[in-house]
Amino acid sequence: MSIRIGILGYGNLGRGVECAIKQSPDMELAAVFTRRDPASVSILTEGAAVCKVTEAAEWKDKIDVMILCGGSATDLPEQTPEYVQYFNVVDSFDTHARIPEHFEQVNQAAKASGKVGIISVGWDPGMFSLSRMYANAILPEGRDYTFWGKGVSQGHSDAIRRISGVKNAKQYTIPVESALEAVRAGENPELTTRQKHTRECFVVLEEGADKAKVEEEIKTMPNYFADYDTTVHFISEEELLKNHSGIPHGGFVIRSGRTGWEQENSHVIEYSLKLDSNPEFTASVIAAYARAAFCLSKEGQSGCKTVFDIAPAYLSPKSGEELRKSLL
Amino acid sequence: MSIRIGILGYGNLGRGVECAIKQSPDMELAAVFTRRDPASVSILTEGAAVCKVTEAAEWKDKIDVMILCGGSATDLPEQTPEYVQYFNVVDSFDTHARIPEHFEQVNQAAKASGKVGIISVGWDPGMFSLSRMYANAILPEGRDYTFWGKGVSQGHSDAIRRISGVKNAKQYTIPVESALEAVRAGENPELTTRQKHTRECFVVLEEGADKAKVEEEIKTMPNYFADYDTTVHFISEEELLKNHSGIPHGGFVIRSGRTGWEQENSHVIEYSLKLDSNPEFTASVIAAYARAAFCLSKEGQSGCKTVFDIAPAYLSPKSGEELRKSLL
Repeated sequence: MSIRIGILGYGNLGRGVECAIKQSPDMELAAVFTRRDPASVSILTEGAAVCKVTEAAEWKDKIDVMILCGGSATDLPEQTPEYVQYFNVVDSFDTHARIPEHFEQVNQAAKASGKVGIISVGWDPGMFSLSRMYANAILPEGRDYTFWGKGVSQGHSDAIRRISGVKNAKQYTIPVESALEAVRAGENPELTTRQKHTRECFVVLEEGADKAKVEEEIKTMPNYFADYDTTVHFISEEELLKNHSGIPHGGFVIRSGRTGWEQENSHVIEYSLKLDSNPEFTASVIAAYARAAFCLSKEGQSGCKTVFDIAPAYLSPKSGEELRKSLL
Repeated sequence: MSIRIGILGYGNLGRGVECAIKQSPDMELAAVFTRRDPASVSILTEGAAVCKVTEAAEWKDKIDVMILCGGSATDLPEQTPEYVQYFNVVDSFDTHARIPEHFEQVNQAAKASGKVGIISVGWDPGMFSLSRMYANAILPEGRDYTFWGKGVSQGHSDAIRRISGVKNAKQYTIPVESALEAVRAGENPELTTRQKHTRECFVVLEEGADKAKVEEEIKTMPNYFADYDTTVHFISEEELLKNHSGIPHGGFVIRSGRTGWEQENSHVIEYSLKLDSNPEFTASVIAAYARAAFCLSKEGQSGCKTVFDIAPAYLSPKSGEELRKSLL
């Protein structure tokens, strides 16, 4: 029997989940729920339903795990506690500072309904968090570094687009190679924001906009750009669409630490991702955790979980025996 | 209350565990058990006992987790099922092909005694296995690569030492940089044994031994060297001790895979280790899993487990709340 999945929210992430389900022989897409008019939404999976989000609760007994593909700012803080009343759910809530609060709300609702809610699944938070946690447990005396990129930051791209005179824009976050090398060499450097990442912007101007003024506005924008070395390139709309329409991302989690009676030996643990499509990779992680949500629920567990709480074997369709034989 | 640890076998790995316990504020070393005369064994930890291995069972109620530091060839297949009768145990059984059989034996004994036995802990098997497993669950369509080194292979060093005319030797396994680069670029190359690793040997000859003959014997040794490009350097005993007395190791686990409705996007997940001391790092992983064995046992679990079966949070001394706040 396959795991029946629902997707709530059909943007880049929702479509990524749909693709991940196609690669998972033990899963099937039951329905997509959307705030738009369902007649206007065309999905890729034959046989799956497209429904209004207001109908979701009616699918209570026809969906094993509901994957919530909304945004962290306003959607998920409301949606995850709401839908865990009816379904096992997985979300990708990624506002790090608000995770404890989100956890409490989801946990309360999930304990009450007897369902499993897995939050903050993806790569950061998600696989990067796991790498940090394993490395910290193994090397208690050490230091963590996280670098992001090279990749597109949606938030920074949006910030540029809001500047008057800007028609379109894409921003790449790029780790500073020399900083990465120093960390890998176990030098434990103290790094400022500016020393860790640079920002590269590709900007399409409106007719008659003032280049110098836009560039100045970008480079001095507080929080987003002022603390970084930022490069701005003005390009045509055609070039932007041709060369910058992808959503690549990635990054590096590195812990360097010391062992030995007098801490005489040094070790470096590094985890890195190089992703053509940020939302599709995030969706692939989410699909694996949907499998875990299903299995944990079958075992009678309930409440809110994060990647820290879930034994790795639950993510795989293989049996313990197969895993030990082929991957241990 | 601290977790009381026993160490059975006091070689490089046992000493590494002792150092790891020093870095773990929630653990204490209760006793070391040795096949040697305890009076002849001096350990680093003040206040811990040194006992004959034959006395181990008497410590049944004074040790929470016994860490078995014997070898995989003959010690652990006997010791792990034996000692799990009395203790929660952790071992580093690393004969990949015999893991299923070892698992069954330990599981049977552990189920009977109500204890937890965690087997095959370290970095390969261990952290490398986890990286392979997570990456396989996330990217079902893809390909795995494992490279080892640069590092000392004890087995290959021993094989050289058994050649007549050789006084001492150290062998390094080195990944081929161009192969690593091709894998990282997502090219999914088919790689032969020779294309993945080279072997570099530092050899001290006995007086009057025949250089050419020894070199020929090394390079043509089946299984160990014949399938590799091997370099042999003859050096003095002083140079060997001065420049090659460490036990560094490490390696890379890489999975490249594809997502998207038509598999149009490519992703690379990489995990790597660079270790000054192979046994101390292995011991540090084992110490974290000893914490897990203790917690699982407290919860009433029993039987044989591997790294696949254990939720990451069990490895950390931090609470779930602290972990979510600081590392998610």
